[in-house]
Amino acid sequence: MQKIIVNKDFEIISGGITYPQGIKASGLKCGIRLNKKDLALIYSEKLAEAAAVYTTNKFKAAPLIVTEDNLIKSEGKLQAILINSGIANACTGQRGLEDARKMVDYVAEGLSIDHKYIAIASTGKIGEFLPLEKIKKGLKEAISKLSDLGGKEAAEAILTTDTTKKEIALNFKVDDKEVRIGGMAKGSGMIHPNMATMLAFITTDISISQELLKEALQKVVAKTFNMISVDGDTSTNDMVIVMANGLAGNPTIIEKDSNYSKFFQALHCVGEYLAKCIVKDGEGASKMMEIEVQNAMTFDEAKRVAKAVINSPLVKTALFGADPNWGRILAAVGYSGVEVDPEKVDLYLKEKIVENGQPLKFSRQELHQYLSSSEEIKIVIDLKRGKEKATAWGCDLTYDYVKINTKYS
Amino acid sequence: MQKIIVNKDFEIISGGITYPQGIKASGLKCGIRLNKKDLALIYSEKLAEAAAVYTTNKFKAAPLIVTEDNLIKSEGKLQAILINSGIANACTGQRGLEDARKMVDYVAEGLSIDHKYIAIASTGKIGEFLPLEKIKKGLKEAISKLSDLGGKEAAEAILTTDTTKKEIALNFKVDDKEVRIGGMAKGSGMIHPNMATMLAFITTDISISQELLKEALQKVVAKTFNMISVDGDTSTNDMVIVMANGLAGNPTIIEKDSNYSKFFQALHCVGEYLAKCIVKDGEGASKMMEIEVQNAMTFDEAKRVAKAVINSPLVKTALFGADPNWGRILAAVGYSGVEVDPEKVDLYLKEKIVENGQPLKFSRQELHQYLSSSEEIKIVIDLKRGKEKATAWGCDLTYDYVKINTKYS
Repeated sequence: MQKIIVNKDFEIISGGITYPQGIKASGLKCGIRLNKKDLALIYSEKLAEAAAVYTTNKFKAAPLIVTEDNLIKSEGKLQAILINSGIANACTGQRGLEDARKMVDYVAEGLSIDHKYIAIASTGKIGEFLPLEKIKKGLKEAISKLSDLGGKEAAEAILTTDTTKKEIALNFKVDDKEVRIGGMAKGSGMIHPNMATMLAFITTDISISQELLKEALQKVVAKTFNMISVDGDTSTNDMVIVMANGLAGNPTIIEKDSNYSKFFQALHCVGEYLAKCIVKDGEGASKMMEIEVQNAMTFDEAKRVAKAVINSPLVKTALFGADPNWGRILAAVGYSGVEVDPEKVDLYLKEKIVENGQPLKFSRQELHQYLSSSEEIKIVIDLKRGKEKATAWGCDLTYDYVKINTKYS
Repeated sequence: MQKIIVNKDFEIISGGITYPQGIKASGLKCGIRLNKKDLALIYSEKLAEAAAVYTTNKFKAAPLIVTEDNLIKSEGKLQAILINSGIANACTGQRGLEDARKMVDYVAEGLSIDHKYIAIASTGKIGEFLPLEKIKKGLKEAISKLSDLGGKEAAEAILTTDTTKKEIALNFKVDDKEVRIGGMAKGSGMIHPNMATMLAFITTDISISQELLKEALQKVVAKTFNMISVDGDTSTNDMVIVMANGLAGNPTIIEKDSNYSKFFQALHCVGEYLAKCIVKDGEGASKMMEIEVQNAMTFDEAKRVAKAVINSPLVKTALFGADPNWGRILAAVGYSGVEVDPEKVDLYLKEKIVENGQPLKFSRQELHQYLSSSEEIKIVIDLKRGKEKATAWGCDLTYDYVKINTKYS
């Protein structure tokens, strides 16, 4: 896999969620899955400001309901997150909610912290109940193994059909204090019976008010995690959580000053990096595409166009076939629902190949070569309507996608 | 292919667009495509009331713009339709419009009718110009071959990657007069470089006012052609045209009486039949799914839910794998954008398998057998919110879909 490039102002270093000060984690096999790690615990020594963004799916899974409830009760504070893979605890009704609350109980008891400071997440098979005894037993071990080197194991334990773990760590300065930020994520795909779920956990030792942390997370998610698509399906279990424990010792960020900006950029960098990791490791994906829509009237308009293109099965299969099929891209722009003027649209694929809605002369063979030999394809669409832009990331649609998602469970 | 069942009040007989009185057609090879028929002509002896529905894609192809213009000038009257396959004449700018107008010129000259009574349609590769000389020469032959037995050849000439021609004919009585209606369609897929285009042409000898014909067509298209999806992509060239020449001799239908109802039912039957033919012959499709959403607040709401399900790649691949993966169906319901109450939703797949959002006990193995052995799968989703319903039709997502759409052109 080629290196993912995001904001060049930040150097991405080796590490993950346990990189910030005072963050410990562990990951292990508790027996939900066959011979794979399936339980991860994240713990902050100090109670942290926190914020979360949840799936918009109406069938919101039990762990999300319980987590949202806790974050409201604690007014945005968290100290621990327990995550299991293998079973999603979705579409499980009242018993599912009770099971989710029991997961919280176990953590509260094991770590001697208040229930409301605990978040939980699940990913995997839906409509099945959690094996609570296994989780309870596994949690004891997870607590005993909590370590500032445990990020890697935790990052492994949250995976499902992902082929690689997804971690990031970076640091920056706030008033001469080094601030650290780390993150991990899991992408799409669940073997049995296959739910695409996206989970991401971000930790930092920055000191920041809960209000600004929440606002920063929401804005970053809107421009990173919410701009990716493997197959257009929105899971019942999607969630992104951030915890900031303040141990960096910087003066607490309470307004949108230059320190806030720096943190925002770093958080954006983490979000974009993890989002790109997810797309690159999308089910069956062989190539990533980045769609930049320029000169739209609004961000939402640019987003609609970009998402229509990344979700088009015809564009996705063309990308898999390294086919410079610009007509499919324009067609997706045309049905995006945005009032584009076809006679104004320019399209760039390595070079400008469509101007004012009509094809320029270009070598199909050269473009085919370029598409064949690149893992990351950038497509720019200029609508010439306004000044806003949006970038979205997607992947190709391959035989392997069909294979992964076809298997009878 | 199993027999397609639509409204049982109508008997579907052998035949197509030339079944109604006074309708002639022809289809032949004019040389746009390699060794395949690529030019079709439909002619009504008598000037016909007509109506059309066009793609909503902003990149509307030149032939649609010219046809719409003609229908406005003629106040909804047509006498001939010329269709070519192989090249879509889309994204071809000013020259494309001129070429489309030239196609109209040739027909006007060859058949000695006014330009405004002529519709044209193209399907195939986009961004390429039409070989006008071939079309001009081919049209001469097409005119000489016009015949009331020519429907079959015409139905063949409009196909692209379709594997079978799609035709229907039926009759019914209006005040003791036999009224005939016929239709043909082409579905999704274009070999090189692949544009999914849906075209349908319906002819009838009923006598009906243009206003009612237009209203009936719009309503029928909304509930039939617009309720199918092969891959969620909307082509630049989609169009449905109906012509009614009045030769059946019935008293002209000028109000919404029982005769109008009967015609509406027949037109609906033709639309549904052709729409189902298109889905069944969708690119790479091995199975058709019918999604009925019941008890929604509005038709639009039911439609949104039904379309979210038929367009979900995860549902489509599960269907291909004969996997009774109800969780993916519920997840699609949940992200449809409709304010469903998850704790009320029932789901039927052969039997009721989800009640109030939670799975009932059922045999996965039996359902797998059922899905494996059926070409048509019916899924019913009960939202328990209101009294409206909608039905949508889709197909599975298979290796062949990827194969067909991946080939480098």
